[in-house]
Amino acid sequence: MRKVNLQEKFALFSEHWSPKIVGDLNGQQVKLVKFQGSFVWHHHDDEDELFLVIQGRFRMEFRDHSVALEEGEFLIVPRGVEHRPVADDEVWVLLFEPATTLNTGNTTGELTVATLDRL
Amino acid sequence: MRKVNLQEKFALFSEHWSPKIVGDLNGQQVKLVKFQGSFVWHHHDDEDELFLVIQGRFRMEFRDHSVALEEGEFLIVPRGVEHRPVADDEVWVLLFEPATTLNTGNTTGELTVATLDRL
Repeated sequence: MRKVNLQEKFALFSEHWSPKIVGDLNGQQVKLVKFQGSFVWHHHDDEDELFLVIQGRFRMEFRDHSVALEEGEFLIVPRGVEHRPVADDEVWVLLFEPATTLNTGNTTGELTVATLDRL
Repeated sequence: MRKVNLQEKFALFSEHWSPKIVGDLNGQQVKLVKFQGSFVWHHHDDEDELFLVIQGRFRMEFRDHSVALEEGEFLIVPRGVEHRPVADDEVWVLLFEPATTLNTGNTTGELTVATLDRL
């Protein structure tokens, strides 16, 4: 059983929009992701997703509003709800979500990462 | 959809060993707990548990070793593994675990909290 230091793990990669798996439990995964700019609009049919800001800030855009998230804040996006994360500057985010979750949800494109690295 | 600020939620309670639910997703829950001292030895038959230190430090004791956890570090304790959290000073911890998880696992006693508050 090994502990995970978030800062150490974040130091191991620099790509944006490419979640890294750092933990598995109960069919769920803990992932770390860095991003900047706008992601694609998408939803997940069967998965709720948690976004916890570890460093920086971003906003989660929905079709009719957005939620601004700062360090130490999290948001759970329920399944079925279309969303798009947007960050003016690079942000570091921890995700909790089912292992089955595809980053781009119901869409696929150049930002889709089907097989995630483990750190 | 409302975001959760961890510091604001931790400011709402002071009891030890009494996890508060702050999020639900995919049959799992996000809980916040403060504690100091030694918990009871226990395990969970069917649930893996994640402990992420938000403020302070503690050690997770196992029967044959222990793991020291600092701020920004997490540990996943797999189902079936006997464990006991111990903190010399008060620590603030985020838990991620199935909604079915009883804090004292296979044991019940004065530290058991069967019905958790939501914040």
